[in-house]
Amino acid sequence: MSILAVGTIGLDTIVTPSGQRENILGGSVTYFALSASYFTDVRVVAVAGADFTPELESVLTKCKVDTRGIERTAGQTFRWGGDYTSNLNEAQTTFTELNVLAEFNPKIPAEYLDSNFLFLGNMVPANQAQVRRLMKDAWLTGCDTMNYWIQSAPEELAKTLNLVDVLLINDGEAKMLGEEPNLMRSAQRILAMGPKALVVKHGEYGATIFFREGAFGVGRHPFRAPTLPLAEVQDPTGAGDSFAGGFMGYIASQGEINREVLKRAMFYGGVMGSFAVERFGTERLQQLTRAEIDERFAIFRELTHLE
Amino acid sequence: MSILAVGTIGLDTIVTPSGQRENILGGSVTYFALSASYFTDVRVVAVAGADFTPELESVLTKCKVDTRGIERTAGQTFRWGGDYTSNLNEAQTTFTELNVLAEFNPKIPAEYLDSNFLFLGNMVPANQAQVRRLMKDAWLTGCDTMNYWIQSAPEELAKTLNLVDVLLINDGEAKMLGEEPNLMRSAQRILAMGPKALVVKHGEYGATIFFREGAFGVGRHPFRAPTLPLAEVQDPTGAGDSFAGGFMGYIASQGEINREVLKRAMFYGGVMGSFAVERFGTERLQQLTRAEIDERFAIFRELTHLE
Repeated sequence: MSILAVGTIGLDTIVTPSGQRENILGGSVTYFALSASYFTDVRVVAVAGADFTPELESVLTKCKVDTRGIERTAGQTFRWGGDYTSNLNEAQTTFTELNVLAEFNPKIPAEYLDSNFLFLGNMVPANQAQVRRLMKDAWLTGCDTMNYWIQSAPEELAKTLNLVDVLLINDGEAKMLGEEPNLMRSAQRILAMGPKALVVKHGEYGATIFFREGAFGVGRHPFRAPTLPLAEVQDPTGAGDSFAGGFMGYIASQGEINREVLKRAMFYGGVMGSFAVERFGTERLQQLTRAEIDERFAIFRELTHLE
Repeated sequence: MSILAVGTIGLDTIVTPSGQRENILGGSVTYFALSASYFTDVRVVAVAGADFTPELESVLTKCKVDTRGIERTAGQTFRWGGDYTSNLNEAQTTFTELNVLAEFNPKIPAEYLDSNFLFLGNMVPANQAQVRRLMKDAWLTGCDTMNYWIQSAPEELAKTLNLVDVLLINDGEAKMLGEEPNLMRSAQRILAMGPKALVVKHGEYGATIFFREGAFGVGRHPFRAPTLPLAEVQDPTGAGDSFAGGFMGYIASQGEINREVLKRAMFYGGVMGSFAVERFGTERLQQLTRAEIDERFAIFRELTHLE
């Protein structure tokens, strides 16, 4: 089944202890789409400027991502600078140039309206809600957000949360949104805001999914999948969106939702995140094979499997 | 089989967001012994002052901990103050009074020399090495240490690491000792210093065990067990020693070491740590039942179990 991903395309300038790169392809839909492309068909809606060259676009199309929904406007693509030299787990933003993103109003091509899965990358919550309302046939919607929207647009965000099935955020965001330092209680408060499930990403420690009572008929117990970067961590950028791509891509590939599918999806999310960080930008995500993905899945399963 | 635990008894003054307590029973052997007591026989060696009352001692003896190895000297018991109000994951030390601990030179009662398991709580590395050399019959030795010794006594610590089987430390300590921010590589460097296995505790995210090639014949893949405080976190003090008590206690109760035993031991470690933090000091650890422990074990297993 097809996934539609709506979010950002960006040109990132990144400094990490392993080196630096200037204006490399990034953005939430880029990481999400490449990651999900190993599992299912992916369509993207985003905005890019004149500097989004055919060569950059081919990174997506080589992985069979449908890029017809990328709107081209005059001006420059969104640019972001991140520095991880003092903390590999959290970027210091060095600059943000919204450029063409400032006026972005996502338009869904008619041929995308039949997508069964929808991923709303981090963006203005009102845009997320607007896209969700257009996609009447989506039967599973995943959504990301960030501290900035939790603090500056809580009411808009609340409306969006009421429309989505799975919210995927990190620990700090979950504790801020739930207004509670205990993760279990914070998760309960967030689930009361609307989503059926909450995925909290713990960076190098994996991720946990919490369920609202009755959600998907999968029981109330949370589930945690580990991660373990097996090689070097060169660049953590995009790990969260790559996780979301593996998570939603795997669910879409199964065509049904049950507890076992969701558990495996959590593992695939961790696997894709762990690949993403091994090289700068999308380098590693561009050249994977499903066999490599499943081999790492088996290692992660063994990592926590009790007989 | 019996475990001998050598370390500290302390009187702790603790402030957390949930409240405060003054001069409550703490120290590494206290948490370790109470936790391990649910699995096997535990003997302790430590030093205490005149203020270590029969009432305080009864906390240990009620759980059938053998306290004959606690040396009584004139003066006050070791005291420590910790404040968790700004960060529930890491105490700010408000004061340290070594008192009788300053001159502690651990003596092993003759009737303890047949202990098969040995736990060396965090203390001067030279004392740990001395105890290890005395305990010739111990066939599994676990050891803790801390940043202070890694920085101030690296050569002494290196000698101790050469004598122990399992080192149990937290993430920050592992990265400092291995001089490497990547946990996988840091673990390899630490294992090259002597221990057969390294347990790295990740606080609220669980713990990972890494193996030196050929160690225990259990294969090279690391193993991770999750944790999840199910109720409130009132006081994180002692979580690490409680983990060690569950980990070593379970192994001692099995009488053999194989990969499955070590994996289950990691889960029991996480279970005991999660109980410890639910109440102040040793409150929760004093009144557990094995049924409650196994019920939580089942929840933690379900938390990460793929069919």
